[in-house]
Amino acid sequence: MSEELVLKNLKDMDTGELTSLCSSLRGEILSATKSNGGHLSSNLGIVETTVALHKVFSFPEDKIIFDVGHQCYAHKILSGRGDFSAIRTMGGMSGFPDPDESEYDAFGTGHAGTSIAAALGLCAARDKRGEDFAVIAVVGDGAFSNGLNLEALTVSEKKPKNLIVILNDNGMSISKNKNGLYRSLSKSTIKEGYVKSKKAIKRIFGNSFITKFFKGIRNFFRRIINKDDFFYGFGFKYVGVVDGNDLTKLLPILERVKTFAKDKAVLLHVSTVKGKGMTDAENRADEFHGVGKEYKVKTGGFACAVGETLVDIIGKDDKVVAITAGMKDGTGLKKVEESFPNNFYDVGIAEEYAVTFAAGLSKGGLKPVVAIYSTFMQRAYDELIHDVCMQNLPVVFCLDRAGFVGEDGKTHQGLFDLSFSLSIPNLTVLAPNGKKELKDALFLALSLSSPVLIRYPKDCGEECCDSISEKPFAVVKDVDDYDTTLIAVGPRMKKIALSVAEKDGKIRVVSARRLKPVDSGFISSLKPGTTVITLEENAVIGGFGAYLSGFLRDKKIKLFSFGAKDGFVPHGTVKEQIESSGITAENIEKTVNSAR
Amino acid sequence: MSEELVLKNLKDMDTGELTSLCSSLRGEILSATKSNGGHLSSNLGIVETTVALHKVFSFPEDKIIFDVGHQCYAHKILSGRGDFSAIRTMGGMSGFPDPDESEYDAFGTGHAGTSIAAALGLCAARDKRGEDFAVIAVVGDGAFSNGLNLEALTVSEKKPKNLIVILNDNGMSISKNKNGLYRSLSKSTIKEGYVKSKKAIKRIFGNSFITKFFKGIRNFFRRIINKDDFFYGFGFKYVGVVDGNDLTKLLPILERVKTFAKDKAVLLHVSTVKGKGMTDAENRADEFHGVGKEYKVKTGGFACAVGETLVDIIGKDDKVVAITAGMKDGTGLKKVEESFPNNFYDVGIAEEYAVTFAAGLSKGGLKPVVAIYSTFMQRAYDELIHDVCMQNLPVVFCLDRAGFVGEDGKTHQGLFDLSFSLSIPNLTVLAPNGKKELKDALFLALSLSSPVLIRYPKDCGEECCDSISEKPFAVVKDVDDYDTTLIAVGPRMKKIALSVAEKDGKIRVVSARRLKPVDSGFISSLKPGTTVITLEENAVIGGFGAYLSGFLRDKKIKLFSFGAKDGFVPHGTVKEQIESSGITAENIEKTVNSAR
Repeated sequence: MSEELVLKNLKDMDTGELTSLCSSLRGEILSATKSNGGHLSSNLGIVETTVALHKVFSFPEDKIIFDVGHQCYAHKILSGRGDFSAIRTMGGMSGFPDPDESEYDAFGTGHAGTSIAAALGLCAARDKRGEDFAVIAVVGDGAFSNGLNLEALTVSEKKPKNLIVILNDNGMSISKNKNGLYRSLSKSTIKEGYVKSKKAIKRIFGNSFITKFFKGIRNFFRRIINKDDFFYGFGFKYVGVVDGNDLTKLLPILERVKTFAKDKAVLLHVSTVKGKGMTDAENRADEFHGVGKEYKVKTGGFACAVGETLVDIIGKDDKVVAITAGMKDGTGLKKVEESFPNNFYDVGIAEEYAVTFAAGLSKGGLKPVVAIYSTFMQRAYDELIHDVCMQNLPVVFCLDRAGFVGEDGKTHQGLFDLSFSLSIPNLTVLAPNGKKELKDALFLALSLSSPVLIRYPKDCGEECCDSISEKPFAVVKDVDDYDTTLIAVGPRMKKIALSVAEKDGKIRVVSARRLKPVDSGFISSLKPGTTVITLEENAVIGGFGAYLSGFLRDKKIKLFSFGAKDGFVPHGTVKEQIESSGITAENIEKTVNSAR
Repeated sequence: MSEELVLKNLKDMDTGELTSLCSSLRGEILSATKSNGGHLSSNLGIVETTVALHKVFSFPEDKIIFDVGHQCYAHKILSGRGDFSAIRTMGGMSGFPDPDESEYDAFGTGHAGTSIAAALGLCAARDKRGEDFAVIAVVGDGAFSNGLNLEALTVSEKKPKNLIVILNDNGMSISKNKNGLYRSLSKSTIKEGYVKSKKAIKRIFGNSFITKFFKGIRNFFRRIINKDDFFYGFGFKYVGVVDGNDLTKLLPILERVKTFAKDKAVLLHVSTVKGKGMTDAENRADEFHGVGKEYKVKTGGFACAVGETLVDIIGKDDKVVAITAGMKDGTGLKKVEESFPNNFYDVGIAEEYAVTFAAGLSKGGLKPVVAIYSTFMQRAYDELIHDVCMQNLPVVFCLDRAGFVGEDGKTHQGLFDLSFSLSIPNLTVLAPNGKKELKDALFLALSLSSPVLIRYPKDCGEECCDSISEKPFAVVKDVDDYDTTLIAVGPRMKKIALSVAEKDGKIRVVSARRLKPVDSGFISSLKPGTTVITLEENAVIGGFGAYLSGFLRDKKIKLFSFGAKDGFVPHGTVKEQIESSGITAENIEKTVNSAR
């Protein structure tokens, strides 16, 4: 679709033409996602709303922020910025909003909960500078109960004008009637009162004109006292619920919202169907949330192992409980929910809460296992330190997607968890290579009476034979007279290390499965004058290599570290990301030789 | 007060005796705080409520969690655990709840927002294990709008039985009518609707019996539709507002709450006077919030400098704005509020929001300076990475209380900010020694077009003459033929380094004012074969020394690092904490000599 054609014409299109445009957009989204993978269902669901926003508002002068960001595909196509079919490939468009890519992306997003806070910041700057444009935050119902969005709602009852929050309700959280916000959103919270008084009045007055009179009053009040009141208290005019997939309904309402917003911040509640336009995605929206090429959905090898192992463990120990922050599929905890629903907690997109809640569970005598992706665990850094580790509580953390994550790119990389965890006292840090080691790690973790963090990428690799307790640093390729030891963290690094070592008779390879505490026996056995090279899928700064250096200070060991460099790693394949970080056999060999 | 006497008798005391007990408690609190410093006003305000809780409930079987924790003094005295007069001194009682100290402290707290999440965890464990006790969370109004507490409220509308949340409203946040939560809490949110309809009815019906009839209906609805509805939606029965300083009112209500709670979670809203019982503290509650010995309140030297410098800068550049997360006094931003209220934002206890809001302000063209204590900045770690640094936004962070913090102890130490910040790409990290350097750092930071983090302890120290840009690493004691370089981060470390160097003609001392990017010119000038010793008030793991080691790998430099060891540092004086961390002249000299 040519950029000029879209931008020039969209404003002039009538509803019929816009509906055709939506079909075209769906076609492009389906095509690109089939080829490159991506977030399918949410993007399909938000097409009409995105088109309507582009029709009614004027981007980039008006600003739009997509909370969590992955539902931006239609927006990216409409705002024309190059070849959409290359989305999520190295050098191509990012799968998330990125101001570096286009001024149509007002704010970079990827983690949930940031849009309203960022929108309030943009509004405050706009108003202080005397500028005039609309600021729109599109937030899914799941992200609405995230602490950062809640803080943004709560911080002040005075909301700026020309702020529109679009609550995109695709029923994935709210309709499941899970949380307190829902009660306030979709039921009249005073319904009980109404019902009681209605019955009382009928009982007293029967069907007389007085009853009819009361009904009139009730309807009068109802117009005033509906879900309006919840958001009213937070400074918004509430409009909704509108069918967000029906342009004939949505467009006129959006025009009125645009006008209302000039006087008061507006919360527009739209209802959309996740996966709209593709039957499979509509029926199995969760499965089609994040897909690979050919729409394939493959649960990570480690996630499978976590689910299976926990089911096995819980079957023998009812005190073990599993917690996810809205990611039961990706983390593998769905199996626990199915087998042991009373040992399973899904707290929604609330990582901080997940961790402190787990601390409370642990203090109360249960054995919590919290599964959160490495990148999202960043949200709970303080809770990890202050609520878990400071009290030395035996909580186990399973950090999936640790390391390079591929096509989701910079907002999702798991390249900081070693940098943030290794400095936390009382915390044991483990890095298994495959399913068996993951099980070993879980059993070990649950046997300790202190906190443990286990980190691993999505896919499993080859494993070592020895148990982690026996051999925290396991020698996986030994040589009699080594001059170099490659210490690898995780399966991908181990594979690279072995490829280097197989061509060199003086290099041995070690897999570090327990990173903290270090394997002090192994450290003291290191031959002085030799070289140690660490390989990790983590920032070099503050990572495992940096941590290890503290134990080698007086050992006449030459230490070199490979890992992510000091920069945010953009989207591409994992292989491309590892290479562009310089973690290549060639570079490692060069380092080996320069040290000799 | 003898423990046995209190515990045995409190349950038997009548209201008069309990009132006398409150006076005694106040006496002990005033006395210990005068001697050791501490959190005075909040503790004075919560005495009656604490006594009432101990009277009505049975600790430690029932569990109590104090959000933010510092208002636990009366509880500690009543639960008898040693010499209260030694509170906040090394080896003495902590100024915060600590399960290691006593089973009466159900959960360790210090940072705001954790109590409801932890309480829900305790309840879930209790219910799963078939146990039976009450769980009480005492939350101040300020902490109520923290994202973690909000997540805890929102995560599920089903709250456990036997959970009581006490909202301690001392008017310090809510009465200032600052946030959306207040509207819902203390006004009927449909008041506007009522007022309009009331006027309409009067206009139509005058003063006839029909108007009176409507008034009756109104009163009927009012009883049903009050603030009850807000918390009802979150699964609580709401009871309040009760005078939390009046035992005659509080005790009977608390008894009823205890009974209600057996069927449904209860939110009890109490109103207390901060500083109650000491006129000065009542009238100037903010000032007497955290006091030093003799109740002295001294604004930190760096905080003063931050306030003065920002006022100066904003006077010339209206785009500069200052943000605090509920700590305008401690951070020095109060001066900005007084001089430039339109350039000042206090977001309440919401650090995550503060940072993402600042990112929005920056994206909108303003120049935000965010002042948050080092320990509380841990809460906004992900927002720092994801919302600020990933978009390379020029936001300046001023982290006060970086380093050892003294008597507030382990929950407040600022010993991780270098470990978490040095690995973040795009972030410049500065560590000034005194007022002049702080100003220099602020001017430098605001001149850059990328994010900057400035960290410093409470009190200023001696400064260097050169600007930070010219000499990121400034040599403060030079020798011609050095064999050792002590690189100190911050004024206290510099002082220790100088005391070591003055007795040794081959040691030079460097003050590192810019930690990242390193001073590469200085690094390349280091003489091979010499020793570098880093001194920092931060964890050694992942700290500045570890960061520096990455630049010294091929330089034949012997590197040693002094800093906080791998453990949480308990309360005491700063001097005691520095010594117990081994950062002593004696140890440094030993290291120097062993390297020679």
